[in-house]
Amino acid sequence: MTGIDEAEAERHRAKMAKRKAVQDAEVAAKTIEKGLLIVNTGPGKGKTTAAFGLALRMLGYGRRVGVVQFIKGKWHTGEREAFAAFGERVVWHSMGEGFTWETQDLKRDVAAAQAAWVKVEELMVDPSISLLVLDELNIALRYDYLDLDRVVAALKGRREGLHVVVTGRNAKPSLVEAADLVTEMGATKHHFSAGVKAQQGIEF
Amino acid sequence: MTGIDEAEAERHRAKMAKRKAVQDAEVAAKTIEKGLLIVNTGPGKGKTTAAFGLALRMLGYGRRVGVVQFIKGKWHTGEREAFAAFGERVVWHSMGEGFTWETQDLKRDVAAAQAAWVKVEELMVDPSISLLVLDELNIALRYDYLDLDRVVAALKGRREGLHVVVTGRNAKPSLVEAADLVTEMGATKHHFSAGVKAQQGIEF
Repeated sequence: MTGIDEAEAERHRAKMAKRKAVQDAEVAAKTIEKGLLIVNTGPGKGKTTAAFGLALRMLGYGRRVGVVQFIKGKWHTGEREAFAAFGERVVWHSMGEGFTWETQDLKRDVAAAQAAWVKVEELMVDPSISLLVLDELNIALRYDYLDLDRVVAALKGRREGLHVVVTGRNAKPSLVEAADLVTEMGATKHHFSAGVKAQQGIEF
Repeated sequence: MTGIDEAEAERHRAKMAKRKAVQDAEVAAKTIEKGLLIVNTGPGKGKTTAAFGLALRMLGYGRRVGVVQFIKGKWHTGEREAFAAFGERVVWHSMGEGFTWETQDLKRDVAAAQAAWVKVEELMVDPSISLLVLDELNIALRYDYLDLDRVVAALKGRREGLHVVVTGRNAKPSLVEAADLVTEMGATKHHFSAGVKAQQGIEF
């Protein structure tokens, strides 16, 4: 864009003033404050990464966050190191022992998921926690490592003000139903298809 | 899931062993390492949040990241505060002055976007930067605040090893074409529709 004439600038101003009025009215109509149940699902990238980005935002306000990893026990090295900068304000539990195709041991996977859920219940009643990330919980539910109805009931019954983010592909319909915010990450294009390998700082 | 009999455990083991073999072969086939051009687009949440999550991951490995915000000058208070924990390892430039419907001033918006682009070009040649987040660049491109061909050419010509994440709705086709990884965030369900307002630590 090079020169902008006055008529063009004025049309822009009028259009944006109208848009701002609509925007302001929408904002004013929203008055509820509540702890949200957030689900990041779908086949694309960014489900866990966005959950950790939200945790970072909360940390920026001096709040505390909890992270319970259900499956990827060996991953997230980068985030763990980075969260160490916030000391006691991040409570981290890695319960899974890698993907289920790594362990190939159903009993051990079920036991790990159930132990992780006990940690979740502890953190859900801790009033110092503002946001709880339940990483790859959807995978544990998909493989029936946990009882779906019990998990959904516990999440619905979370204390007022607690935000919870659940990640993982194939979110169960009853969880989606209970959620306030559901985002489906779609893979439009992926560099793995072009032979690029997982790299430090990007995938792990 | 209560009792698991031996036959069930064995079926699970066999299935997962097969899956692991497929997985391992896929990983082995990927050998390329390169700085990625990543685009987070779509109407859903998590575009910027995932970009900042990726920045966090990089920081966990002791690397440096750059952030240039094209539009949301007044936002991201939480992240800015949180990134302060990493001191000099985060270089942050907020060039936009709020959404375009806030300023209602086309000339000022164009000038701000162009000044932001100058910062991007500086950071792109800085060898100490591993990841560059170009937040809401898609909005600046959509409103023609910047020349699309020039921007795409510069991004394609980035130095080897530099990862760049571009966020914002309505990514331009030529940018998608140039990208290695494109994720479309879809809004399956949004709490704003239920009258819930923007809350600290979640939206800002």
